[in-house]
Amino acid sequence: MAIVLNCDMGEAFGLYRCGDDEGIMPLIHVANVACGFHASDPSVMRKTVRLAKQHGVKVGAHPSFPDLQGFGRREMKMGHDELVACIVYQVGALKTFLDLEGMPLNHVKPHGALYGAASRDATVAGAIAEAVALFGVPVMGMAGTVHEEVYKGGGLAFIPEYYTDLDYTDEGKLIITREHEAKDPDEAARRAVRVAKEGLATSINGKDLPMRAECYCIHSDTPTAVPLAKAVREALKPWLA
Amino acid sequence: MAIVLNCDMGEAFGLYRCGDDEGIMPLIHVANVACGFHASDPSVMRKTVRLAKQHGVKVGAHPSFPDLQGFGRREMKMGHDELVACIVYQVGALKTFLDLEGMPLNHVKPHGALYGAASRDATVAGAIAEAVALFGVPVMGMAGTVHEEVYKGGGLAFIPEYYTDLDYTDEGKLIITREHEAKDPDEAARRAVRVAKEGLATSINGKDLPMRAECYCIHSDTPTAVPLAKAVREALKPWLA
Amino acid sequence: MAIVLNCDMGEAFGLYRCGDDEGIMPLIHVANVACGFHASDPSVMRKTVRLAKQHGVKVGAHPSFPDLQGFGRREMKMGHDELVACIVYQVGALKTFLDLEGMPLNHVKPHGALYGAASRDATVAGAIAEAVALFGVPVMGMAGTVHEEVYKGGGLAFIPEYYTDLDYTDEGKLIITREHEAKDPDEAARRAVRVAKEGLATSINGKDLPMRAECYCIHSDTPTAVPLAKAVREALKPWLA
Amino acid sequence: MAIVLNCDMGEAFGLYRCGDDEGIMPLIHVANVACGFHASDPSVMRKTVRLAKQHGVKVGAHPSFPDLQGFGRREMKMGHDELVACIVYQVGALKTFLDLEGMPLNHVKPHGALYGAASRDATVAGAIAEAVALFGVPVMGMAGTVHEEVYKGGGLAFIPEYYTDLDYTDEGKLIITREHEAKDPDEAARRAVRVAKEGLATSINGKDLPMRAECYCIHSDTPTAVPLAKAVREALKPWLA
Repeated sequence: MAIVLNCDMGEAFGLYRCGDDEGIMPLIHVANVACGFHASDPSVMRKTVRLAKQHGVKVGAHPSFPDLQGFGRREMKMGHDELVACIVYQVGALKTFLDLEGMPLNHVKPHGALYGAASRDATVAGAIAEAVALFGVPVMGMAGTVHEEVYKGGGLAFIPEYYTDLDYTDEGKLIITREHEAKDPDEAARRAVRVAKEGLATSINGKDLPMRAECYCIHSDTPTAVPLAKAVREALKPWLA
Repeated sequence: MAIVLNCDMGEAFGLYRCGDDEGIMPLIHVANVACGFHASDPSVMRKTVRLAKQHGVKVGAHPSFPDLQGFGRREMKMGHDELVACIVYQVGALKTFLDLEGMPLNHVKPHGALYGAASRDATVAGAIAEAVALFGVPVMGMAGTVHEEVYKGGGLAFIPEYYTDLDYTDEGKLIITREHEAKDPDEAARRAVRVAKEGLATSINGKDLPMRAECYCIHSDTPTAVPLAKAVREALKPWLA
Repeated sequence: MAIVLNCDMGEAFGLYRCGDDEGIMPLIHVANVACGFHASDPSVMRKTVRLAKQHGVKVGAHPSFPDLQGFGRREMKMGHDELVACIVYQVGALKTFLDLEGMPLNHVKPHGALYGAASRDATVAGAIAEAVALFGVPVMGMAGTVHEEVYKGGGLAFIPEYYTDLDYTDEGKLIITREHEAKDPDEAARRAVRVAKEGLATSINGKDLPMRAECYCIHSDTPTAVPLAKAVREALKPWLA
Repeated sequence: MAIVLNCDMGEAFGLYRCGDDEGIMPLIHVANVACGFHASDPSVMRKTVRLAKQHGVKVGAHPSFPDLQGFGRREMKMGHDELVACIVYQVGALKTFLDLEGMPLNHVKPHGALYGAASRDATVAGAIAEAVALFGVPVMGMAGTVHEEVYKGGGLAFIPEYYTDLDYTDEGKLIITREHEAKDPDEAARRAVRVAKEGLATSINGKDLPMRAECYCIHSDTPTAVPLAKAVREALKPWLA
């Protein structure tokens, strides 16, 4: 199966900038577009969807806990029904901007703390599954975690992804920080190729980690985002969609 | 042309209540449902759409300036593009909840200060027209104001409405207050009948005002909302849809 | 030691109302006033502080996680430094309104999910302790929980409180719900007297619970708030300050 | 009278950055620190106040209309009492962070659209005057405008300022844009010197404008902020405090 590159996009907010969307968009296949709850606003969403269209990039929704101040990276305890409605609202708002451009909703990828909570907690994953099922699209996540099981159990298509610019613990857990640090583009490219070729990622301590991935994620808000995206894209050429 | 009764609904927010939606919904034909920017949240929106469905009530979007603290009753100076995107986002989020219930989006009715600004200012009305045109539905407003002209000029269907529970100046301007006061149900019913029969409203000083209306608005957040809705509905029976 | 009655006050937001502050204020000794992060806004804060002054009621700050939509009843995972700053900001804003009325800040009582988290989690309680210490006032909480230990360990005066209108589990844990339900005023009064006289509360299943309390809390947002406050105040007369 | 340089500081928000506060702080005498309503959050406020202390910079409050999404650059129509309370809340929160560092509140400078509205509209300026009077500090503004008159009429000390990095119309009105553009440091320095020496600013079309100023403002969110601040500071050396 061909590999695609995905990136969280459209995370500016009002006058605040976040990441080099213009630089990254030509390098990826799939964009996870923020929906206004951890980042973005209606103007940024519209502009980001149009930028994706211009570059032939597919767009998925990137919903979050409602936490602009924390950029969606602070876990919140929400009830099942309110979490379902919260996700439906965000995905629906983004889908509207896609409708207006004649683009389909490609998938949903939960953001930050919502993504992390879903990977560990079946009740959170269950609310996401219920919301996403209403749109009939696949959901992105990490293979071998709680959310893969819950999403698939809910009848959803699951897109496993590998993070090219984050570290994994020896136990295979993603190390998510409030601010993403720069990572060496060449190192990221080497690791990505290893995943594509051998199905093995490298943990922060150099341990081998079995890694199943159809999608390779790049963050736009790191200092080396554009060169890293270029290096990973170049290195993965033989496997790319 | 048959008259319909419309009411702004779903204006609760989290634990905060606003109006007796359960009491009003059975009495109206059309609900203008808040979209989370002046009131409401995703859970309230979902619940309100379902309540409308249960009572066979048609649903329109009720978008606002982004101002929860001010309940959308404080005018804001927004740029054209950001106002268009702001309205699209809200209407789209609401339309999503309608889609999920198999209900069409019936119309758009701007809320509070956005409604007022549009009735006076062609640039505000123009942004609303541009946003609503993307959804291809009619827009509600007051006959004989700037926004009627702009909406129609933009090719939109226009639904003129009469406010049964607000006062009009001798010049025919609506008197909008931050908090709506109680109004006598019988008086409101008498005035509504006069509009239906004679095409004349009564100003706050008793002056006759020519009034063109297809839609009669009731507010849910006044102390006499339910009895007023009942009285108006009963009195307008011969003209109702 | 004389008993005081306290109540969470000033939890309106914009046009939204919450509780009968005018009815409750004459019945209590101490008000915990919301600071705008789970409820309230600057106008409500100013008005509430003035209402307290008028009735000779002492005022403490009632800071929360930043979550207006969830009324501060959804736990959030915040970092230590940002939680300290978040509490300082809220307490400081309230203290300013007190300064302007010539009133001292009496205490701090964390709200909702922040209160609950602090009662279980020493890191949350530690951040609260650090913030409150900067103001040099006592902090309210439940005796025998993690936060009592942490607050006292941080050198803070601790005011143990008993909830007259909430239920306790057989293990002595408070049962906090998103919406507070009505409770029988006489039953609440009987239980409060038992705590004052015998130092024993009654669990939801009728079990005896040792209860140390200097402060008896009443909520303003239950349907029976005013009669319950009256009944509790009348019954506790012999022990009141 | 000696001239001081002032700059709007602490306008980051969560993970979003805005301006090079570390680079600018050593170059200025007075910082106008955002209070969380157009930018900033409690953590940013605390950090900014400490950075100012470290560099011996005096701190004033920089309150705004409540509009994070619009960075406070969208005018809002607020009632008198709610605007007073809104400003008191913000100034009070900032003053708290100053109290904790043993620093006095130096002044208040309204931000963005609030500043602009006050310079034209006596009711807005009146609300600001009422709020600032409660803190007993001077207020910054543009000489010869409505707000100078209102502030002074309200008994407040007034600090007239000149904007080194914005343009003025031929009528002497400031041209405020949503995003500040880069300005040539040498040109800015030349113009600043002319104001200091001759009391004359240069309009966008090269016209002479009488300019009374004790305070010279630099923005931190322009691309040339640091070199511009350096150039202006160097050029104004003979007049600086």
